[in-house]
Formats: sequence, structure tokens, C-alpha cells
Amino acid sequence: MSKDLVFYTNPQSRGGIVHWMLEELGVPYKIEYLEYGSSMKSPEYLAINPMGKVPAIRHGDVVITETAAICAYLADVFPEAGLKPEGDALGPYYRWLFFVAGPFEAAVGLRACNVNLNAEQEMQLGCGRLERVTDVLADAVGGRQYIAGERFSAADVYVGAHIGWGMLFGTLEKRPEFVEYWRELQNRPANRRSEELAEKAMSKQA
Amino acid sequence: MSKDLVFYTNPQSRGGIVHWMLEELGVPYKIEYLEYGSSMKSPEYLAINPMGKVPAIRHGDVVITETAAICAYLADVFPEAGLKPEGDALGPYYRWLFFVAGPFEAAVGLRACNVNLNAEQEMQLGCGRLERVTDVLADAVGGRQYIAGERFSAADVYVGAHIGWGMLFGTLEKRPEFVEYWRELQNRPANRRSEELAEKAMSKQA
Ligand SMILES: N[C@@H](CCC(=O)N[C@@H](CS)C(=O)NCC(=O)O)C(=O)O
Ligand SMILES: N[C@@H](CCC(=O)N[C@@H](CS)C(=O)NCC(=O)O)C(=O)O
Repeated sequence: MSKDLVFYTNPQSRGGIVHWMLEELGVPYKIEYLEYGSSMKSPEYLAINPMGKVPAIRHGDVVITETAAICAYLADVFPEAGLKPEGDALGPYYRWLFFVAGPFEAAVGLRACNVNLNAEQEMQLGCGRLERVTDVLADAVGGRQYIAGERFSAADVYVGAHIGWGMLFGTLEKRPEFVEYWRELQNRPANRRSEELAEKAMSKQA
Repeated sequence: MSKDLVFYTNPQSRGGIVHWMLEELGVPYKIEYLEYGSSMKSPEYLAINPMGKVPAIRHGDVVITETAAICAYLADVFPEAGLKPEGDALGPYYRWLFFVAGPFEAAVGLRACNVNLNAEQEMQLGCGRLERVTDVLADAVGGRQYIAGERFSAADVYVGAHIGWGMLFGTLEKRPEFVEYWRELQNRPANRRSEELAEKAMSKQA
């Protein structure tokens, strides 16, 4: 018996990453749109995600929050979609999922708050400086079609979307490694479908 | 044929979390100690982790960095240790691994840099304010022995160590939920063994 899958999102949010992932899976799901500041902070939604943030999913009785966690979970529980690598590729798969969810997000956040880490903070904070995080990420995707092994995986959805959006919103430098890596990923039919669905939802909102 | 497993660390670092995880696994591994500012920034080690940070592991030909990624990887590739949950517990497993590696680490980092997020930043940054992250984490572990399902998992190693150390170093409030959750975890023989090994390594350094 298949459990129902509900996706909580706002069309202008990190939820777009999960939307892409869901379209890659090709399984049925229901979307619930939430508004910033209002329904996202309602008691009903805070029972799903006490952070009052999107995205989240509910799969049967299980709630999962955190974009990268949702990608990793879905790749695991729908093995037929082939979005979780096997063998050696499992190393870079987890490594770069956590690198982007951790140091990359943190370093971008610090920069957005105009923080300039001193040497001591750089050593203690798990992220270090944005310049170094950017160098390391550029090196990880440079010359590669996929970030973990020779096949597309959930890590490409998560890392790719962060790179693509980072360049779009100007939070990430447009390095050639990023442009190259993102070029084919962004044209995946599942990504295009999720973008179209988000645009439709936005024009309804407006 | 079993691949060799090498653990790169410093006894005073997040490497302690991986050390505990390795002791839970009960598989053989080799330790390489690195010094802050010197061997951690050597070309040899930068080839392993270009962030110049510990911990990292090498398993056969695969390098994994990021403490949480290493825990997730090891739980996956050594299934006989039973450190990765199955079924519904997989949801909270990934959720809290990524929550601590992402929002929790980021919010602690921002606080260490004396940043006070305004409402706009709280909405945009993936972590939000430390107070909220702390509330959410307290709620996640409150009244539970294990964070994902009814059995101990790699998520307890990672989340537990962050909670235990956070309280020890004063970066996390000593809430009753945290104290309770940590009480039994810290006494696990594998954690005690890894602590003893770290102490020995420190006294050798001194
Ligand atoms: N760490 C979370 C971040 C989620 C997040 O910050 N979402 C934003 C939109 S992209 C949000 O819902 N903000 C609303 C708010 O904080 O009120 C993840 O990766 O999923
Ligand atoms: N995001 C990384 C953080 C690793 C980290 O920041 N390690 C510190 C020690 S706890 C380090 O090696 N600092 C040395 C440096 O940056 O020079 C993880 O979770 O493993």
C-alpha cells in the first residue's frame, strides 16, 4: 500500500528544490502552498515544521523538514528512481549534500549579514570563509557532469539548484565550473516541469 | 576484501564525533592526527580536505569530509552495525542530521559572531534565530531516548555530541530536555572509549 505524499511549499522558496526532486521521482504527490508570515506561522503548519519554514513533506505519518534531508529521504525510500548512488559514489553523495547544507549555506548567510570572519572564527566555525567554500565547491563540480560518480543523483538536484540559484540571485560567483555544471542540469525535464508549476502557482497568487 | 579505513582528526575537534561513530561500528581503522595551522594546511592534507579542516575519512579510494556526512556514510556502508534506521524512523534520521549540520551549526556560528538577525534575515537565512533553533531541537529530543525511532542510530551520535558539547562549551543552553537526552548517550561504551583515546592523544601532544 502506498503512503500519501504531501509537499508543503511556497513557489518562491527552497521548496523548488524538493519540487524538482519530486518530479524526478515520478511518484504522485499533493501540493499545499503556504504564505510567508501567515499560513507558514499557523498552528497547523507549526505542527509540521516548528521552524515555520518551507519546504516540508509528509509521507504517510512521517514528517521531514530540511531540503537536503527531504532529498536524501526520498532517494532512499524510492530506490526504483535510481537517485541514490551505490558503491564508491556514496562518499561524494553524502559529502556534498552535507557540504552545501552546512558550510555553504552558513558561509552565504554570514556574508549576507556582512560578517567577515577573523582567523580564529574561520578555524572554529564549521564553514570557514565564503571564498574558500566557493573554491572547494568549484573544484568539486569542475569538469564533472554529476557530483557523485557517473550518474545523476539527488545530490545533483540539491547541489545543482543551490549553484544555479546562487548564480541567479548573485549570492554565488559565476565561475566557469558552476556555469558548466549547471548548464545540463537545469534543462532536465523534471526541473523544467517544477519551474513551470511554480510559475503557474505564482501567477495564481498574484 | 575489506577496504582500509583511515580517520584524519585532531583530538580537540569535531573529529571526536567521528571517533565515537567509529567505535560504535567496531570495525578496524587507522588514525592520523593533524595539527591546527600546520599539517592541517599541508598540501598532502589539502588533497584530502581542501577546506584544511578535520575530520575526514578515507575508505579505500573514497574520501569523505563533513562530520555528518561521514556518520551517514558509515551507517550506510556498515549495515551490520545497525546504526541506520529503517522504515518510518528514516524520516527523523535525515531530518535531524541535516537540521544540526545546517541550521543549528549556522545559528551557533552567527551567535558566535554577535550577529542578531532581523526579521528579513530570519526569513531568508535557512537557520533563523538561535532561540528558535534551540526550541525546535529541545522539542525533538524531549522525552525521547533516541532521536529517530526506538533504536540508537548514527543520528544520536551526531546530534547527541553536538548537544553534549554545546552544553559543555556554553554554546547551547542547558535545557532539561538536552540534559536528559545526553545523560545515557554520553555513557555509551563507544563514546567513553573515544574520549579516552582522545585524552591519550592530547597528553602525548602536550
Ligand atoms: N534549512 C531549511 C531552510 C528553509 C527556509 O529558510 N525556507 C525559507 C524560504 S526559502 C522560509 O520558509 N522562510 C520563511 C520564514 O522563515 O518565515 C531548508 O534547507 O529547508
Ligand atoms: N563542517 C565541518 C567543520 C569542520 C571544522 O570546522 N573543523 C575544525 C575543528 S572542529 C577545524 O578543523 N578547524 C581548522 C581550520 O579551519 O583551520 C564538519 O562538520 O566536519
